[in-house]
Amino acid sequence: MTTAKSFYPPQRTLMGPGPSDVNPRILQALARPTIGHLDPAFIGMMNEMKHLLQYAFQTDNPLTFPVSAPGSAGMETCFANLLEPGDTAIVCQNGVFGGRMKENVERCGATSVMVENEWGRPVSLDKLADALEAHPEARLVAFVHAETSTGARSDAESIAKLARKHDCLTIMDTVTSLGGIPVKIDEWGIDAVYSGSQKCLSCTPGLAPVSFSEKAAEVIRNRKSKVQSWFLDLNLVMGYWGEGSKRAYHHTAPINALYGLHEALLMLREEGLEAAWARHRLHHHALKAGIEAMGMNFLVEETYRLPQLNSVTIPAGVDDAAVRSHLLNDYQLEIGAGLGAMAGRVWRIGLMGHSANKKNVLLCLGALDNVLCSMGVEINQGAAVAAANVIYHNEEN
Amino acid sequence: MTTAKSFYPPQRTLMGPGPSDVNPRILQALARPTIGHLDPAFIGMMNEMKHLLQYAFQTDNPLTFPVSAPGSAGMETCFANLLEPGDTAIVCQNGVFGGRMKENVERCGATSVMVENEWGRPVSLDKLADALEAHPEARLVAFVHAETSTGARSDAESIAKLARKHDCLTIMDTVTSLGGIPVKIDEWGIDAVYSGSQKCLSCTPGLAPVSFSEKAAEVIRNRKSKVQSWFLDLNLVMGYWGEGSKRAYHHTAPINALYGLHEALLMLREEGLEAAWARHRLHHHALKAGIEAMGMNFLVEETYRLPQLNSVTIPAGVDDAAVRSHLLNDYQLEIGAGLGAMAGRVWRIGLMGHSANKKNVLLCLGALDNVLCSMGVEINQGAAVAAANVIYHNEEN
Repeated sequence: MTTAKSFYPPQRTLMGPGPSDVNPRILQALARPTIGHLDPAFIGMMNEMKHLLQYAFQTDNPLTFPVSAPGSAGMETCFANLLEPGDTAIVCQNGVFGGRMKENVERCGATSVMVENEWGRPVSLDKLADALEAHPEARLVAFVHAETSTGARSDAESIAKLARKHDCLTIMDTVTSLGGIPVKIDEWGIDAVYSGSQKCLSCTPGLAPVSFSEKAAEVIRNRKSKVQSWFLDLNLVMGYWGEGSKRAYHHTAPINALYGLHEALLMLREEGLEAAWARHRLHHHALKAGIEAMGMNFLVEETYRLPQLNSVTIPAGVDDAAVRSHLLNDYQLEIGAGLGAMAGRVWRIGLMGHSANKKNVLLCLGALDNVLCSMGVEINQGAAVAAANVIYHNEEN
Repeated sequence: MTTAKSFYPPQRTLMGPGPSDVNPRILQALARPTIGHLDPAFIGMMNEMKHLLQYAFQTDNPLTFPVSAPGSAGMETCFANLLEPGDTAIVCQNGVFGGRMKENVERCGATSVMVENEWGRPVSLDKLADALEAHPEARLVAFVHAETSTGARSDAESIAKLARKHDCLTIMDTVTSLGGIPVKIDEWGIDAVYSGSQKCLSCTPGLAPVSFSEKAAEVIRNRKSKVQSWFLDLNLVMGYWGEGSKRAYHHTAPINALYGLHEALLMLREEGLEAAWARHRLHHHALKAGIEAMGMNFLVEETYRLPQLNSVTIPAGVDDAAVRSHLLNDYQLEIGAGLGAMAGRVWRIGLMGHSANKKNVLLCLGALDNVLCSMGVEINQGAAVAAANVIYHNEEN
């Protein structure tokens, strides 16, 4: 402690499951002078941010804003506001985050009906339909659009349609999907959605964009009991993040973090959602070609594989932790370990937001190639980078 | 929306109830490269931060860390972890934040016994003693050390002693006190404490330092029911912020915000707590001399007035909002409005952390002098700055 001094982090390349690389424009925005949370200049920025978020979510929901805390608090905002004690919610689980949803449901005093799916596969529509039939008392269906623990995408539009048919609200986790693959809240008819700032938005971690349909907002306004969290109670938060120029103090907003998110959303809009989705696809194709050229496989089948979160099966006999620490120490490159049931079985290679670029893909493949070779794993040295370059040559032109 | 562009905030002087002026060293720390929340380099910084926080709180509590959300979430962390449904808590209220504590208690399914005190005065020990006698079932006493809505300091040490005598745990709000006046968690025997990053620590808003005694930690470990918030459940959070080098993922920590808090705590340690407290006192004395020279009065009596939060009674007939917007627009100076029952009755002038300096005091007095004169309020023009300078001349030498 006598030696405590300013902290200068190493310059890493972030290709794990988030945080992703943060563009210098966003880092610079964070360092701008702090102003008050009721300053008219700040309120103007907040209004702009809401519109930028509506664009990102493809929604006109007025109740769209960033929760002043990480994605997990965004999840809790949805459950704590929409559920009351005694309610029943159907939770679709196909990875770690469905399990976290179950925890949220039960801590709200509600009952969870689990629709269990194999990890690495999407949510089964048939199983969900069965659960909806068997539980007419359910008033909510929750699911993860893009499972960060596996890299599988579920069919959000069909899930929402099924839920609607049974008069259920939907809560969708878009922590890893927003900005990386299509997320169309209004077109799909999703009632509540949350995300995180540090994945495909490529902002620093700590904020959770959320959006609620008018139907969901109505449910929140007409609750019989108070929301169990004062901090996350939308009936109160709306006094600050609501429409118009009049803002009432609820809690002190994280001013500088919001500067960063504003800049990140602005960059997404400048690039355009379609272009951002195409960029994630392109670099996924290149990474995939390289990974397969090394003889490794993906956990998730191609049809529902996320381009931004690549779960690669660890070859038999390879020391997971040694490879990752080699990459970190010798290449300043972070890739993700497996989470929960996937620990030790997969590496999670993120191509999220600003991290989805050619430099990162080539670094990752080149570094993995070298590290695996040095550990005596039999791969065709040099094949990975060559295969990725073929993709770039073909798809970029 | 077609015109959305990068947000460049104006350069304000922040003399409201927080956020306070942020030192450029802290702003620069925010802009350093983002690294992963499980990166060994980051974990080293977290360990250092815990020690720096222990110094700020004057405690050896191992369970000392910053909650990844604003001060209000720090408050909720204390109540949600220490209370179970059916418990009784005594809440001392002498301003807005005691009311927020009551909300927290009740949303945890517990019963609140209110000890009501006049706003602007400290918590009455006699009233608290009566409440403790009348409610032997109470297991917790909660109070605000430094009421941000009024500027009154309560006698934390005596409150904690009383609570202990009745076998009650204590929860203390130090949002506005930490770093500005003595806060001595171990010496006073406080069980749970929370604060905010944006007041006398002069960091950006968004983090809530907390600390829990071993007795409180034991209560949390032995709960009968789960903490109602997954995000704030300390039994889970401790897997990430606990002792040792092994950290388990709970939520993604707000990396860059934590860089800022680390730098802010380092600056506090470099200055030293005693020196920081003396600096707040000095500038309060100068501000007070100026305010009184203009013929204005303080809401709170001198014996329990906070140096860092000065509630000044608005002279009769003066247009509160017009003065504040004059100061903001013509002097880039933010002072605070009254909150709750104090709205329209007081201005809250903050001298918190980095904002407690001579330049700010002279600007504030000079600007108020000019604005009030221009609005036809009868004050002795120029007297305020002169009176403050006398204090600086006498006390600085």
